[in-house]
Amino acid sequence: MKMNFPELFHYGNYRVLKKKENSIFVEDLAPASAAVVTVYEGRLILVKQWRAAIGSYTIELPGGGLEEGENPEDGARRELLEETGLKCAEIHLLSTFHPQPYFTNRFSYLFFTNSILEQGSQSLDEDEKVTVESYAVSDVLDEIRLGNLQDSELAYGLFIAQLSGLIEP
Amino acid sequence: MKMNFPELFHYGNYRVLKKKENSIFVEDLAPASAAVVTVYEGRLILVKQWRAAIGSYTIELPGGGLEEGENPEDGARRELLEETGLKCAEIHLLSTFHPQPYFTNRFSYLFFTNSILEQGSQSLDEDEKVTVESYAVSDVLDEIRLGNLQDSELAYGLFIAQLSGLIEP
Repeated sequence: MKMNFPELFHYGNYRVLKKKENSIFVEDLAPASAAVVTVYEGRLILVKQWRAAIGSYTIELPGGGLEEGENPEDGARRELLEETGLKCAEIHLLSTFHPQPYFTNRFSYLFFTNSILEQGSQSLDEDEKVTVESYAVSDVLDEIRLGNLQDSELAYGLFIAQLSGLIEP
Repeated sequence: MKMNFPELFHYGNYRVLKKKENSIFVEDLAPASAAVVTVYEGRLILVKQWRAAIGSYTIELPGGGLEEGENPEDGARRELLEETGLKCAEIHLLSTFHPQPYFTNRFSYLFFTNSILEQGSQSLDEDEKVTVESYAVSDVLDEIRLGNLQDSELAYGLFIAQLSGLIEP
């Protein structure tokens, strides 16, 4: 992306651009992340972590930002391994999606795997604290329907997996 | 939300906070928006508009930011009317969701209506250009599954509507 809007502020990989008076875009210079809908022994593997931006814990897909020059599939495998210790064989792309197309160029590659080869241990950054949890698919769908889980990436990944017949409702 | 992170920048309703070195949160001081899954004469009513942040047109749910002190349901009705000219009778809350809980406190109320009372004309802001389009539900679900539609709010709203039995797959 190259957006022709005045730059108001720049820090790290983030540029704040003036959309109009009192309104901004955030341009992320490393906009891509990857996350994985992971089915292992018939259950969904999800990660729980504190999200200061919304002041609560979330249950999300394993995933995170791609490294510079990293292939999306490699990034998805790396994030799955780092956050959950799970190594997978086949993995395939479901789609990409934009969390806030009105605000930022950020986007995410969503993958699916149900072929876990081995389970090792997490290797997190020093400031990361991520708990791995497994759930019945139907329980997660119920919690999304009831509004108890509210993360866009989790819902987007499960929606496509369901529409594609990869998980049962 | 009140986040105890150093403020790097402030413009309008947006505060950029330092999460850690080279990493930020964006705190939105008016974080709530509302959007509506709208079924009219058996078809989904969606809006097409240019999104400069991602450099393309999107197909989204009618919706937008709540005004100061505005009730979410009132905001959903107002946005539906402004963007599509449609006035609805009953409308009900599906859920709220967080597009980027790792980055911003922004969240969205998702509503559903299938009781349209009358169709008038749009009343857009001067800088808004929004085209109203109607689609078969199954076509939209196909386009999401195929990755041709990639908006988180659209997918989230349709997912809950489907899980709740309000739209047919």
